[in-house]
Amino acid sequence: MIESTEGNGHNHKILRLPTIKRLPTYLHILKRLQAEGEEYVSTTALINELDFKPILVRKDLVLMGIPGKPRTGYCLKDIIQAIEKFLGWNNVDEAFLIGTGALGSALLGHKPFEENGLKIVAGFDIDPERVGKVIHGKKIFHLSKLKELAHRMGVKVGIITVPWQSAQEVADVLIEAGIVGIWNFSMLKLKTPPEVVCHNENLSGGLAVFSVKLQQRRENLL
Amino acid sequence: MIESTEGNGHNHKILRLPTIKRLPTYLHILKRLQAEGEEYVSTTALINELDFKPILVRKDLVLMGIPGKPRTGYCLKDIIQAIEKFLGWNNVDEAFLIGTGALGSALLGHKPFEENGLKIVAGFDIDPERVGKVIHGKKIFHLSKLKELAHRMGVKVGIITVPWQSAQEVADVLIEAGIVGIWNFSMLKLKTPPEVVCHNENLSGGLAVFSVKLQQRRENLL
Repeated sequence: MIESTEGNGHNHKILRLPTIKRLPTYLHILKRLQAEGEEYVSTTALINELDFKPILVRKDLVLMGIPGKPRTGYCLKDIIQAIEKFLGWNNVDEAFLIGTGALGSALLGHKPFEENGLKIVAGFDIDPERVGKVIHGKKIFHLSKLKELAHRMGVKVGIITVPWQSAQEVADVLIEAGIVGIWNFSMLKLKTPPEVVCHNENLSGGLAVFSVKLQQRRENLL
Repeated sequence: MIESTEGNGHNHKILRLPTIKRLPTYLHILKRLQAEGEEYVSTTALINELDFKPILVRKDLVLMGIPGKPRTGYCLKDIIQAIEKFLGWNNVDEAFLIGTGALGSALLGHKPFEENGLKIVAGFDIDPERVGKVIHGKKIFHLSKLKELAHRMGVKVGIITVPWQSAQEVADVLIEAGIVGIWNFSMLKLKTPPEVVCHNENLSGGLAVFSVKLQQRRENLL
């Protein structure tokens, strides 16, 4: 999906998944430099702030389609705008979050989402202990209210943070409510119609890489 | 680092990062099948439960070094053991977590970590409102106590969930305390000595991919 071209005048080059995943990190550092009063950044200066291979950074920057100037480098305003436009972070999507356990509660309070085009407007749960509460400023409703609220508020995006056992049931509620995008943090592969965009998040992947690095270190010391 | 061979008799084949990131998902589904009373799983049945390309799943399974039998498939006990050994999840690492905001608090209560080889034993912060509290059963100490507690409890792993502005300062405290592995959720590239394993987590990467998919869907509808 990601690798398809759009051909509608937008800057949707054929970007591969790893490049897309690096974009928020570039954006974070570019905005930090801008907040510090800089107007331009050289590729070398940017590479110094990053843990990515220099060759990847150079390639990614070219894909953004903003020409860098010799000596001065990239204009921060232009490159920030190009990345935000590519990510669609110049338009904010409103989202519902379903499942307000440890992970769900954290996402309700995760400020970078709001800065990055995704505004969670309400939480949902079925646990009577949680329904009616306010977590990080967001009201928690019973799941049975979701369809009505989605229509009334025009919300089209849902974030699933329930255990895998309940994930399909929640997805069905979302689809029934006209949601078109699902960000799925459960470990279950969801059955969704083709017109619904579903992105599965694998939070344990990072722990796996960290674990293998730790284990290799231990073995090298033996 | 990950791609180096070990040659010490362990099953450290040359696994690439994407394969390592998929392993926890396999493990989750294999354990679910085992809990349902299954003893064997066929590659086809496993593929049906997954959102990965079938060719990738077949290759990953071969890399685990466990022979599948024709008709019956893989022995669940053997393949689970092989993956856990590869990930080092048969040994549990005890860890400290520093920064108990929304994200840090969620990680303190994230049960899969404990099942997956990483047990967070205490939290640290400098905010007087948080120090002394208990979050998800874990006591929160002042950062100034970290060095003493690391030595007394023999903890060697640290998880950084503070904002980027404080991340290097926290990393310095961890290194001073003899920590050998750092899982860094801040967006800052940390300066650490070569003997310290540092893994940077990029939580916004998933949101970036989801955003691009949503945007492409919107544009296709225009």
